[in-house]
Amino acid sequence: MKYKNFVTDVDGVLTDGGFYYNESGKSLKKFGPHDSDGFKILRLLNLNICAISADKRGFSITKRRLDDMSVPIHLVSEMERYAWVNEQFDLTETIFVGDGLHDRSLLSKCGLGISPRNSPPIVQQSANIVTTAFGGNGVILEIALYLKDLYNEKSN
Amino acid sequence: MKYKNFVTDVDGVLTDGGFYYNESGKSLKKFGPHDSDGFKILRLLNLNICAISADKRGFSITKRRLDDMSVPIHLVSEMERYAWVNEQFDLTETIFVGDGLHDRSLLSKCGLGISPRNSPPIVQQSANIVTTAFGGNGVILEIALYLKDLYNEKSN
Amino acid sequence: MKYKNFVTDVDGVLTDGGFYYNESGKSLKKFGPHDSDGFKILRLLNLNICAISADKRGFSITKRRLDDMSVPIHLVSEMERYAWVNEQFDLTETIFVGDGLHDRSLLSKCGLGISPRNSPPIVQQSANIVTTAFGGNGVILEIALYLKDLYNEKSN
Amino acid sequence: MKYKNFVTDVDGVLTDGGFYYNESGKSLKKFGPHDSDGFKILRLLNLNICAISADKRGFSITKRRLDDMSVPIHLVSEMERYAWVNEQFDLTETIFVGDGLHDRSLLSKCGLGISPRNSPPIVQQSANIVTTAFGGNGVILEIALYLKDLYNEKSN
Repeated sequence: MKYKNFVTDVDGVLTDGGFYYNESGKSLKKFGPHDSDGFKILRLLNLNICAISADKRGFSITKRRLDDMSVPIHLVSEMERYAWVNEQFDLTETIFVGDGLHDRSLLSKCGLGISPRNSPPIVQQSANIVTTAFGGNGVILEIALYLKDLYNEKSN
Repeated sequence: MKYKNFVTDVDGVLTDGGFYYNESGKSLKKFGPHDSDGFKILRLLNLNICAISADKRGFSITKRRLDDMSVPIHLVSEMERYAWVNEQFDLTETIFVGDGLHDRSLLSKCGLGISPRNSPPIVQQSANIVTTAFGGNGVILEIALYLKDLYNEKSN
Repeated sequence: MKYKNFVTDVDGVLTDGGFYYNESGKSLKKFGPHDSDGFKILRLLNLNICAISADKRGFSITKRRLDDMSVPIHLVSEMERYAWVNEQFDLTETIFVGDGLHDRSLLSKCGLGISPRNSPPIVQQSANIVTTAFGGNGVILEIALYLKDLYNEKSN
Repeated sequence: MKYKNFVTDVDGVLTDGGFYYNESGKSLKKFGPHDSDGFKILRLLNLNICAISADKRGFSITKRRLDDMSVPIHLVSEMERYAWVNEQFDLTETIFVGDGLHDRSLLSKCGLGISPRNSPPIVQQSANIVTTAFGGNGVILEIALYLKDLYNEKSN
């Protein structure tokens, strides 16, 4: 496969983008099913996987979930996002998944840009692929199965 | 742009209107994605932004989220809502976003009245615009992008 | 109006029927928007309002929400439900709202039986009316506005 | 009825598959309505009922809900799942309900394999039946009513 790296945003991809607040602030995030299975398949495809998040206040919550799935997670601000990914990876060899306004440059510049179905229309326009799954509802598994098929076809 | 002020209700606009109760009462609210990006755009349009809520019991939760987005938030009862907004702002220069029965007078009297897609039909009838986004799912961003386009057209 | 009493189930009507569990058991319920407004209208129609719930483990949570809306709430087991309502009220003068299997006898015997849109089909068949609103998403307001219109027509 | 055993996965069947995380890790699961009624019907059909889960971190939460419904629950890893069920039960006499990638062998080998409507397409293909209910929204009740009808027809 021509792609070597898989970089994904967290909120809105592994979650539906919602933040549960109590009187002390951000207290809960809801992570969806099947993503753990998706990451297992991505690993079998020898992709170099990492997740990035700009959510500073919710980062300890985010880290808990990503740690449970053994996916490296980095706190990178929205402003630094493009430069950070560009520095770490050759963008043309990178798959990027994101749903936010500030993800548009990476979605259009990476080798493969993917947005969840419920991303704002203006974000979807920058992506190569829009998943049929909603954020927090199987996005990573859908992408992993798609890439697995792609890889198998190319191996034939 | 002819609008100078942007006033939004919170529950049902920045949330889906749900209240999570535990044995001690109202304990959580779920805030949606993209609204923070929406407020940033509204600020670039030089709109005077504030949020109002009639939810006294959940106000400390509401304030936490609005503080995180640097949006001023005021506790105003349903009965006082119209008078309060009318006193602070010239209604004809004001955009108002709301989803409740008691929002109908402001929706019809403000320069631009906007309701989320899942507002009760009787409320939607009082609004000038109904968003395609559901409450708690990108309402503010959708409105901000709409106003930005409106502004750009008028600048041409 | 020929109806004098309004009796409603709680879980699945004022909520979407979900129970949030933590390690200590049932810990949260999510109540929806607009029901408080709905009860206010029902009071203006001079209906005698009460809520019943068979959820013993979650009753302290349920009571918190109903107290906040000033609606009397009674813990009545599924087995005793029909007899309890029948003893308190003349069923022909009673509106009953419910979504569960054990609500079917009351739905069919009360003057007006109403089920939320997402009730199981077998329950909906016992109801006179199925709301367009989902449980926990404005059921009580929809019913209240329907009854208000009904009352106004009859007053003409 | 030719089926003697009813084995169900938990996450994605009795829940929508979501995991609510706080700073300490997995803290909440949302269980849906009507499943308790469904299990009551399955018991009347003399089915031997048990639930299995591979979610170790969330098992204490899962056990709380299943205990409340008096359904035996076993922690069985994804790898051991097929062997475990095969050892306990004659698969041809067993109904199995599941929504995950690792459920596919049991779904296709059991006498009756059932998947919730929102299972990944690749999983649904291994099932004999796909419910109209979404996971966490009445799956068990729908199956119970289906089996009850099946049983009644055969008794005629």
